[in-house]
Amino acid sequence: MHLSEITHPNQLHGLSVRQLQQIARQIRDKHLQTVAVNGGHLGPGLGVVELTLGLYQTLDLDRDKVVWDVGHQAYPHKLLTGRYDSFHSLRQKGGVAGYLKRCENKFDHFGAGHASTSISAALGMALARDLKGEKFKAVAVIGDGALTGGMALEAINHAGHLPKTNLLVVLNDNEMSISPNVGAIPRYLNKMRLSPPVQFIKDNFEEQFKQIPFVGESLSPELGRIKEGMKRLAVPKVGAVFEELGFTYIGPVDGHNLEELIATFQQAHQIPGPVLVHVATVKGKGYEIAEQDQVGYHAQSPFNLVTGKAIPSNKPKPPAYAKVFSHTLVKLAEQNPKIVGITAAMATGTGLDKLQAKLPNQYIDVGIAEQHAVTLAAGLATEGMRPIAAIYSTFLQRAYDQIVHDVCIQNLPVFFCLDRAGIVGADGPTHQGMYDIAYLRCIPNMVLMAPKDEAELQRMMVTGVNHTSGPIAMRYPRGNGYGVPLMEEGWEPLEIGKSEILRTGDDVLIVGYGTMVYPGMQAAEILSEHGIEATVINARFAKPLDTELILPLAKKIGRVVTLEEGCVMGGFGSAIAEALLDADILVPVKRFGVPDVLVDHAEPNESKTELGLTSHQIAERVLEAFFKKQVSAVV
Amino acid sequence: MHLSEITHPNQLHGLSVRQLQQIARQIRDKHLQTVAVNGGHLGPGLGVVELTLGLYQTLDLDRDKVVWDVGHQAYPHKLLTGRYDSFHSLRQKGGVAGYLKRCENKFDHFGAGHASTSISAALGMALARDLKGEKFKAVAVIGDGALTGGMALEAINHAGHLPKTNLLVVLNDNEMSISPNVGAIPRYLNKMRLSPPVQFIKDNFEEQFKQIPFVGESLSPELGRIKEGMKRLAVPKVGAVFEELGFTYIGPVDGHNLEELIATFQQAHQIPGPVLVHVATVKGKGYEIAEQDQVGYHAQSPFNLVTGKAIPSNKPKPPAYAKVFSHTLVKLAEQNPKIVGITAAMATGTGLDKLQAKLPNQYIDVGIAEQHAVTLAAGLATEGMRPIAAIYSTFLQRAYDQIVHDVCIQNLPVFFCLDRAGIVGADGPTHQGMYDIAYLRCIPNMVLMAPKDEAELQRMMVTGVNHTSGPIAMRYPRGNGYGVPLMEEGWEPLEIGKSEILRTGDDVLIVGYGTMVYPGMQAAEILSEHGIEATVINARFAKPLDTELILPLAKKIGRVVTLEEGCVMGGFGSAIAEALLDADILVPVKRFGVPDVLVDHAEPNESKTELGLTSHQIAERVLEAFFKKQVSAVV
Repeated sequence: MHLSEITHPNQLHGLSVRQLQQIARQIRDKHLQTVAVNGGHLGPGLGVVELTLGLYQTLDLDRDKVVWDVGHQAYPHKLLTGRYDSFHSLRQKGGVAGYLKRCENKFDHFGAGHASTSISAALGMALARDLKGEKFKAVAVIGDGALTGGMALEAINHAGHLPKTNLLVVLNDNEMSISPNVGAIPRYLNKMRLSPPVQFIKDNFEEQFKQIPFVGESLSPELGRIKEGMKRLAVPKVGAVFEELGFTYIGPVDGHNLEELIATFQQAHQIPGPVLVHVATVKGKGYEIAEQDQVGYHAQSPFNLVTGKAIPSNKPKPPAYAKVFSHTLVKLAEQNPKIVGITAAMATGTGLDKLQAKLPNQYIDVGIAEQHAVTLAAGLATEGMRPIAAIYSTFLQRAYDQIVHDVCIQNLPVFFCLDRAGIVGADGPTHQGMYDIAYLRCIPNMVLMAPKDEAELQRMMVTGVNHTSGPIAMRYPRGNGYGVPLMEEGWEPLEIGKSEILRTGDDVLIVGYGTMVYPGMQAAEILSEHGIEATVINARFAKPLDTELILPLAKKIGRVVTLEEGCVMGGFGSAIAEALLDADILVPVKRFGVPDVLVDHAEPNESKTELGLTSHQIAERVLEAFFKKQVSAVV
Repeated sequence: MHLSEITHPNQLHGLSVRQLQQIARQIRDKHLQTVAVNGGHLGPGLGVVELTLGLYQTLDLDRDKVVWDVGHQAYPHKLLTGRYDSFHSLRQKGGVAGYLKRCENKFDHFGAGHASTSISAALGMALARDLKGEKFKAVAVIGDGALTGGMALEAINHAGHLPKTNLLVVLNDNEMSISPNVGAIPRYLNKMRLSPPVQFIKDNFEEQFKQIPFVGESLSPELGRIKEGMKRLAVPKVGAVFEELGFTYIGPVDGHNLEELIATFQQAHQIPGPVLVHVATVKGKGYEIAEQDQVGYHAQSPFNLVTGKAIPSNKPKPPAYAKVFSHTLVKLAEQNPKIVGITAAMATGTGLDKLQAKLPNQYIDVGIAEQHAVTLAAGLATEGMRPIAAIYSTFLQRAYDQIVHDVCIQNLPVFFCLDRAGIVGADGPTHQGMYDIAYLRCIPNMVLMAPKDEAELQRMMVTGVNHTSGPIAMRYPRGNGYGVPLMEEGWEPLEIGKSEILRTGDDVLIVGYGTMVYPGMQAAEILSEHGIEATVINARFAKPLDTELILPLAKKIGRVVTLEEGCVMGGFGSAIAEALLDADILVPVKRFGVPDVLVDHAEPNESKTELGLTSHQIAERVLEAFFKKQVSAVV
């Protein structure tokens, strides 16, 4: 059977290990070929090919439910669940998503994109199953990186307390999150990987276990005691932490040995209560280049399969915001030993890897643990340090209470640097950085800023570092800047709450925030061709707003457009609207940004077009709103 | 020495155990007497009197820093740090706060109110200390309940990975959060409490340890190995989980034996790296009534010290919202077996204890673990259950990403019931439920509602249960309803997004949300006495807004006032302002609610007065804004 013939994962049931190995090769081929062309996550999926096949052979997927944590490792799952034919459209607009989505496929029982959620979701399904009196297996597959996330540990604490609730947690231990893992839990797992492997357990444990007649799936107290005793006997030390927390621990298992995986999963399904199977996998398995550079090949833009090298784009691009951020941060940290950069397992994505290389003492990676990252920053701030929490807009949602409760209420000077704020492209709804303006703006003491280009990003970094009276946040986008001249040092800080006028005109006031300032300027040029002259303001700060500058202009001009790459509900435009009403200035305000919808995966420019945020569309919408001209006149 | 003479905790240094015991008695007396009069947290503080004294005798608090988790157990700390004389003002406006606050006292190194933050904060201080080359001890005191919160576990994962960073975590294990703890971690701690106590360790461990000459505080690899070996020898099994996670575990220690506590803390200070001292305490210790009923005496309104009974208020009060919620939930759950109530360690506060008593299968307490609670609810929802996540407004901040990522993006029908939304009174800034409208409104698919009174709360509960097409949230306040007639069954659901007109008038449109509807009505009556006739709308829904009803009225009447008990930045009034501008209706809008400030602890009515939200003040502000009449005319 060829992979292309598999439309339902239960078709794996009859296959021999040799046949599964063939399917594994076909999955790897398809996976590699597709990601080489479309880009996407590479190492995670390659590492779980056998895990997926072995698990699915032991499940009835018409009933049983598997929740994949994050979902970036679920490409093999996708290829086994009817998406082989459409897989070429991976991560493209309208095509197969890069993560799991309930609306995409009936075997995607729980979507994700962020880490550490799978055990909670699978436990919810298991509890529902028992309440409804149904029978199916609920399985969570979670990486060792994701296991350091607090909510995964909360779920383990809960599940470990429910001996009658059958739940299988498959720990996909590849010793990595995106970067090598940090923390005591990964170190503990690593120690176990070096312990006697699963055979030891099988010899002593399974044999004895087989002799106990299981009556149904309930665990009588007596049986529990026997089982407890046996485990103590058979697996001294290995998995003790999980055992103490109420899980039956099995492992470590070789995650690329199908026979062993199948035998282990079959065994695991027999054990009542919460069970953890510890699977040792190799990230990037089967593609040597990725095995050698696991950080580099976690996710890839299109690349040459033979050399592993990224396919260069046709024209040279301006530097990415993240790169400018990274470079500038190192410079600032060299000058100021109080600066400490903090990342939650995103050293390469945020660019903090450069800080780590240059000034390791001023760098902290806390693992996937955004809550801890923020309150750790607050603790550092109490001691006069200048903590910079570099966390993507979407991931900062995970530390919302810490921002309110630990940073803003105490007015501590933590500098939040929110990369990937706004439209993120191929990663889709779970990663869009849409809400940060709204969710941060409402918190007292917070200062919000966004640069119009990469040079202003540098100035805002100095501004943030200098702002020692309280918290401050800077949002900036995924992707490249404009190629404007950069400075190597001597950046001048901006005055908090002060905006700048970029262009004057009497017909309409365009107030742009961050990435939307340049499109606003371009729209103004287009409008000018139609005889409409706009004043354009680079707001710089969403909070505090430069009401001194903006309000009189709004009053005088009488027509206001706000531009932001974020949700318009409660966002930047809303701040302008509030300020105008508070000042009794009644002028029409059109807020252009992201309406109250989820933005699907697509090229960023495709998304912007769909949202009406290109400069031409902005010009059009301004004409339509205020000057009632023919729309066709512009395009 | 009498407690009243202690203005600096270092004054404890010279005291004998007998003298400390006297101080302990004085602390308990003052604690009890004050809480009996003012109300406040009772059991937590009484349980840590000796812990506080023992710890402080071994520290130099001019340098060393102690972070108290939550802060509700820190009354003894307050009494030892210069607040004896002002302690009578506990929890009163302008008086001593019920939690710790950096701005209140220099020994309050990190404020709190929410659980599980202390290890992160103390670790931040420890890392800052080492970077600055300073020497002081960083200590976190955390309860066993708080330890189930994910961020505490994230912090342990991080700290356990830093063998060179001295950090002391004192685990105050009273086997309770507010209710008895649930989860595998508390069960594990309980198992340890039944293990051989600290003497065992002292005999085998301390003796041997003493013979090793410590050179500085750094841990050489060799020394580490010796220490590791010794611990294995001396403390088999006890504390294995913490040991595996990189902590040196000491305990359990009798938390009411000062001699033992002091010896243990002295020992702990000698050990490099992260150390956890496990202290077994009794919640409510020294006040027998509280020891017997640890849930009931976690926190108390004013009570009679002899009988322990709450002092009845002068006049009978209408039922509390939480009580109506609790009663109605049980009724609904009896009719609908798909309803599952979920609490994060707040069974009594939310009223879910009644559900637990009546329908234990339909009740889940996950411990202090809001993130897990929400995603567990999402998992239940995928299986067709009707999960009701009953979480205070302020605590739901801890699950923000789970609401966005797991519930709203997947459009799963989770019903969020946010108690204590709005002004909370004596608990102060950390507990104010100010931000939920703003932080939930910006998320696609979310429906937001708030009842005007307790009868409407019942209808909204049916509405929420019936809303199976996606997520929905209901906010309601701390405190009592209005005494309106309630129904025992047969509540009619409301139409989503539809508001109601309560009063008509042509001069001003008042749109109230939730708790502010009645004050709005009363303000309208006052205005009427001044010849101003208001239309009053009970909005019911902040999202979707009833634009069909509200917008034409706003246009016709030409003056709009919005009322909400929440932050006005991005809140309900902002939603109205947005809708008006989107519809090109240019009328003045005054948004009355909570401005961009932190609201301190006070009686709720005091806070409302300070914020200008009483009915008289609303009437005044309306007159002033729109009719320019003399303010004095009203009052």
